[in-house]
Amino acid sequence: MDRRTFMATGSAGLLATQITAGLKSAGAEPQIKPKAIPTGKDASLKVIANDPLVLETPDQLLAATRITPNSALFVRNHHGAKHLADMLPRPMEGTLKIVGLVDAPVDFSLVELTKLAKSEVEMVLQCSGNFRAQFSKISPIKGTPWDKGGIGNVRFGGFRFNEFLKAAKVSVHPDAKFVTAEGADQPEKEGQVDYEKSVPLDVLMARGLLATEMNGVPLPAVHGGPLRLVIPGYYGNVQVKWLSKLRFEGSETSNFFQIPDYRTPKQRIVPGSSMEYTFDNSEPNFDMKINSRIFVPMDQATVVAGQATLVVGVAWNDGTADLTTVEISKDQGETWSATRLAPSAGPFAFREWTTKMSFEKGEHSLWARAVDAAGRTQPLDGGLFWNPGGYGWNGIEKIRVTAT
Amino acid sequence: MDRRTFMATGSAGLLATQITAGLKSAGAEPQIKPKAIPTGKDASLKVIANDPLVLETPDQLLAATRITPNSALFVRNHHGAKHLADMLPRPMEGTLKIVGLVDAPVDFSLVELTKLAKSEVEMVLQCSGNFRAQFSKISPIKGTPWDKGGIGNVRFGGFRFNEFLKAAKVSVHPDAKFVTAEGADQPEKEGQVDYEKSVPLDVLMARGLLATEMNGVPLPAVHGGPLRLVIPGYYGNVQVKWLSKLRFEGSETSNFFQIPDYRTPKQRIVPGSSMEYTFDNSEPNFDMKINSRIFVPMDQATVVAGQATLVVGVAWNDGTADLTTVEISKDQGETWSATRLAPSAGPFAFREWTTKMSFEKGEHSLWARAVDAAGRTQPLDGGLFWNPGGYGWNGIEKIRVTAT
Repeated sequence: MDRRTFMATGSAGLLATQITAGLKSAGAEPQIKPKAIPTGKDASLKVIANDPLVLETPDQLLAATRITPNSALFVRNHHGAKHLADMLPRPMEGTLKIVGLVDAPVDFSLVELTKLAKSEVEMVLQCSGNFRAQFSKISPIKGTPWDKGGIGNVRFGGFRFNEFLKAAKVSVHPDAKFVTAEGADQPEKEGQVDYEKSVPLDVLMARGLLATEMNGVPLPAVHGGPLRLVIPGYYGNVQVKWLSKLRFEGSETSNFFQIPDYRTPKQRIVPGSSMEYTFDNSEPNFDMKINSRIFVPMDQATVVAGQATLVVGVAWNDGTADLTTVEISKDQGETWSATRLAPSAGPFAFREWTTKMSFEKGEHSLWARAVDAAGRTQPLDGGLFWNPGGYGWNGIEKIRVTAT
Repeated sequence: MDRRTFMATGSAGLLATQITAGLKSAGAEPQIKPKAIPTGKDASLKVIANDPLVLETPDQLLAATRITPNSALFVRNHHGAKHLADMLPRPMEGTLKIVGLVDAPVDFSLVELTKLAKSEVEMVLQCSGNFRAQFSKISPIKGTPWDKGGIGNVRFGGFRFNEFLKAAKVSVHPDAKFVTAEGADQPEKEGQVDYEKSVPLDVLMARGLLATEMNGVPLPAVHGGPLRLVIPGYYGNVQVKWLSKLRFEGSETSNFFQIPDYRTPKQRIVPGSSMEYTFDNSEPNFDMKINSRIFVPMDQATVVAGQATLVVGVAWNDGTADLTTVEISKDQGETWSATRLAPSAGPFAFREWTTKMSFEKGEHSLWARAVDAAGRTQPLDGGLFWNPGGYGWNGIEKIRVTAT
């Protein structure tokens, strides 16, 4: 998709300027370094928190390129881990420990790991709390107040989990159903729980990656380098950074970050109400929900009335079913038109889409929704799935444009 | 919806004749009684099997009225049960036995049951194998070769399950998670398994009904009279007829009709392949999938070119989320337009919809799909969910019309 084409049309002058600004700062080292933004990160990232570091990506950067550059990618770390909050690579030192329901524990050297055949996957990396601000409009929610920028689309490089198991000669006991991943980061305060996550063994076998690279370069420390667990199609909370240990277990951990954190109720609940999560009444935030964004024009943009205006965006889901259409409506859902889907960059990646529309003078709503082959689409009212943690928003994308 | 209005337009003469024929035979006792069609059933029902009796409802009857008359409703019985294959009511005699994880077994007289407060629910009753012929086009499937008529929309009357438990002073043990229902019918041949089904206790508590009436009259024997277990939103296989016993249990039964019968794989499989079902790798056919039909014009109908043609149909889902739109496309999914939804007759009932469209001279495809508030819609290619039992088809409705 060539966004320069759009900019050349002049149909949204304000927006073109915004995107150009985004491209410029994405492409070059920021000139001014606000205290909390690590060197190598774009200065236009929004600092949501310093400790632990939380950075949100503005739409201008997301819209600029299908692959989100490392400099533009959002950050969400759990422990202070200040020594890991930089964009530098970390040496491939130490080991990955394999324990639990295996024939014998293994201490696998990271240097040995890098000798395996390398794989790459382009995939959406998204915090399950992305869009939380939308839920908070209905009833306020604690937690990172993500707008729409807790997301990016990157290419991870590393080693397939199933091939690693073979190389490490790990023999897994049939009772093992989950793998619990631990990272090298530690809570900085007394009494805080150390982050860990359990994921289903079969999913890990099918598509798990031990990632050492991102977008062609060694994984920056702030994003989990030297080694990160990566499961395409899953939300970010299970992509454990600074991976140091994998425990093969019969059931999922009851660690705070597995339950009650990062869970949603199985049944819808009344917004504002609280809930005691159990393994039975809730689900972990694993599979990404089908979703879409309109990047061009941007929300509140001005377009030229009566001209063919390029409309551009992306869509994604959990990668288990093809996206069949992304549809757009300028009459609040009365009619929908399919957009043109760009060639797929893989089942887990941003799927770009484009269309052209003409707007009469005045204010317009512009809605987008993705539909996949499994018959999943975005709810008209995403707020229906309000939950105490504010996870998994995937309401229809709704923006406003003014044609003059 | 007034289908006479449609007929008066004359825009689909052939179809009007078909529907009129349907209405006539639905409204009066059939004059000719083919051997297998019980007295009281419409002569235009398609006899799929005699023993056990299986009757399919033609579109003309489904299209004629929102409530499917008892005379028109499909039949799918499991055991021969010839003495139960008639349209007569059965006396409210005998008891309903409550056993298992309860404080004390109960033998509740059906006469006492009828003294409780009565409830009514309008709901879709649909065999989970409805539309199986669609799957069979991809790879043949054994089992009742339903076209699209293993469905109806009826008003059941009876007694709420949770109120019955109170009246019967049944104290349920906290370990009880399922209720297994047995009917009074018996297999006629040696070695055949007696039909029974387990359903989740919480769903039964929330919306289960002990039904004694259908469409305002005592439940005909062939449909389960005197007493039938009814769970709105669930497929027909769990609506156990001639209900005689409810077993409160900690887990679901492993009876043949619970597993491997009436199940679908959790993951999609290659059409034509077989599968050994386990409780882990498969799901029971409980919740009805979101679906829609176009009733007017009918498939292969002829309409008048250039005139506003009334398009009429129904949609339904499992009742856990509102239907937000039913959308129609005459360009094979390139653009979709919302239709007008008739007022809801309840979350579990057929939702009627109408729209008007104009067709140019020639052949046209006409597609419909329902979308609900939970973001569920019908897959473009229903065949993606091919499964060895041929259950749960909900592909986009696709018909062809010719405008002359």
